[in-house]
Amino acid sequence: MEVLETVEAIRSLVRAARSQGKRIGLVPTMGALHIGHLSLIEAAIKECDFVVVSIFVNPTQFGAGEDFEKYPRTFDADLEICRKAGVDAVFAPTTKQMYGCENFTWVKVEKLTESLCGQSRPTHFRGVTTVCAKLFNIVASDVAFFGQKDGQQAIVIKRMVADLNMPLEIVVCPTIRQPDGLAVSSRNKYLTEQQKKDATLIYKSLQKCQQMIESGVKNAQQIIAQMRRILQQVPSIKIEYISIVDAETLQTVDQLSGKILAAVAVRIGPARLIDNILLDVPK
Amino acid sequence: MEVLETVEAIRSLVRAARSQGKRIGLVPTMGALHIGHLSLIEAAIKECDFVVVSIFVNPTQFGAGEDFEKYPRTFDADLEICRKAGVDAVFAPTTKQMYGCENFTWVKVEKLTESLCGQSRPTHFRGVTTVCAKLFNIVASDVAFFGQKDGQQAIVIKRMVADLNMPLEIVVCPTIRQPDGLAVSSRNKYLTEQQKKDATLIYKSLQKCQQMIESGVKNAQQIIAQMRRILQQVPSIKIEYISIVDAETLQTVDQLSGKILAAVAVRIGPARLIDNILLDVPK
Repeated sequence: MEVLETVEAIRSLVRAARSQGKRIGLVPTMGALHIGHLSLIEAAIKECDFVVVSIFVNPTQFGAGEDFEKYPRTFDADLEICRKAGVDAVFAPTTKQMYGCENFTWVKVEKLTESLCGQSRPTHFRGVTTVCAKLFNIVASDVAFFGQKDGQQAIVIKRMVADLNMPLEIVVCPTIRQPDGLAVSSRNKYLTEQQKKDATLIYKSLQKCQQMIESGVKNAQQIIAQMRRILQQVPSIKIEYISIVDAETLQTVDQLSGKILAAVAVRIGPARLIDNILLDVPK
Repeated sequence: MEVLETVEAIRSLVRAARSQGKRIGLVPTMGALHIGHLSLIEAAIKECDFVVVSIFVNPTQFGAGEDFEKYPRTFDADLEICRKAGVDAVFAPTTKQMYGCENFTWVKVEKLTESLCGQSRPTHFRGVTTVCAKLFNIVASDVAFFGQKDGQQAIVIKRMVADLNMPLEIVVCPTIRQPDGLAVSSRNKYLTEQQKKDATLIYKSLQKCQQMIESGVKNAQQIIAQMRRILQQVPSIKIEYISIVDAETLQTVDQLSGKILAAVAVRIGPARLIDNILLDVPK
């Protein structure tokens, strides 16, 4: 497995793989790899002939006062996970390599980035789409893999790729959960044992949403009220949002119908946690 | 010469050319081709093995009240020029093909787009960079050719390509002028004979700038005052700006030194005309 730091090095390696007719897969990550990332890597290995994992804690997607400084960095363990999984190359650039002295150019997806996490993180998605545009241009993969756990991110990136005619396919893989339902996230490391237990209510609230829809409830506010009751069972959870939105436009819906995204963001102790489920509501 | 309307068709044609090891060149245009465009096409043919000219009057780079509707459209003559020049393919998409139902995604280059033409055309460069990002992704050329006549545009696009690591080279070709100095532009068609004569003062003002710098003047305001006197010789010219800026940052400079861009925008009758020269001022 090659570990490369420069744009030139990864480009030249991928070019060689492509000239052998290999299908190139990219798994963009911020490191701190866990079984969620591993599921993306495994999907990439299954579908592609040459798999690149990028590891870059992207400063432009963190807002002022967010956790950029303390975001977990576990580079040696990350490399070990990649090596064992059979990754071909890790691209781990420095911030200087990625952004030079000063970045003037931003890729912005309007509308889809205004709701849900965009409300409390107004510059977050601009950072995500810009760094992904850069990574897609650098690695020139045929396909890139993202997790459903960051559901809004996946929808935003798919839209960017479609709108800008980027020549790659986006594959979104299912959220990986602990046996107790908690979505696996690098930020779970911020939690105490008690907080981890409390955090399982997030997925319980989403399961409640699914049950209510399956039992025929179509009124979004009625469902959200029940989800809120679940999350309010413990004082450690501060709800940021509970939203049920159209899965394509991310606009709120009152009467549920068709493909919807139920999404939750909460703060527990020092962590901001998100989770979501995609549902298809019979019309 | 192939004339193609869909993204799929041009992609597949370029893919075939690339698989033969050909170097791909792109000349993005809005049609209404003239000898300025022809010089770009000739540069592309000289440097590349397979040349694509795109013809697309891009609505997103026109502001409200600008000349999108009446912008000259001379498609058959454009094709004839391309054919005679030896172009391999013309990509002429519809607006629907380029933007679908609704475009959410914008590529924005900050700072460089705020001065000069950006002041009176606040959404113009966002439209230019977005459509160029799309064209670069669609055609996947190794190199794209732009004219120095749109000097700020060339600098903005180069910056976008560098910031987003787009895998192509940008070549900027010299401004083509009539024997009387007037920069060739599709918008010259809007002018009467008298207005065309008046418009030659634009380049005269830029030549004055060059002469003053060559004679040792370094004070920008002193030069701009003389340029203004020239442009004010005829009442038909309404000056929008006369600027002398750093050629990389596009920030105004008081004492000239190093690479600078002297740029003028005026209105004459129904036309808005721009012109510029690049100069290297001894330190």
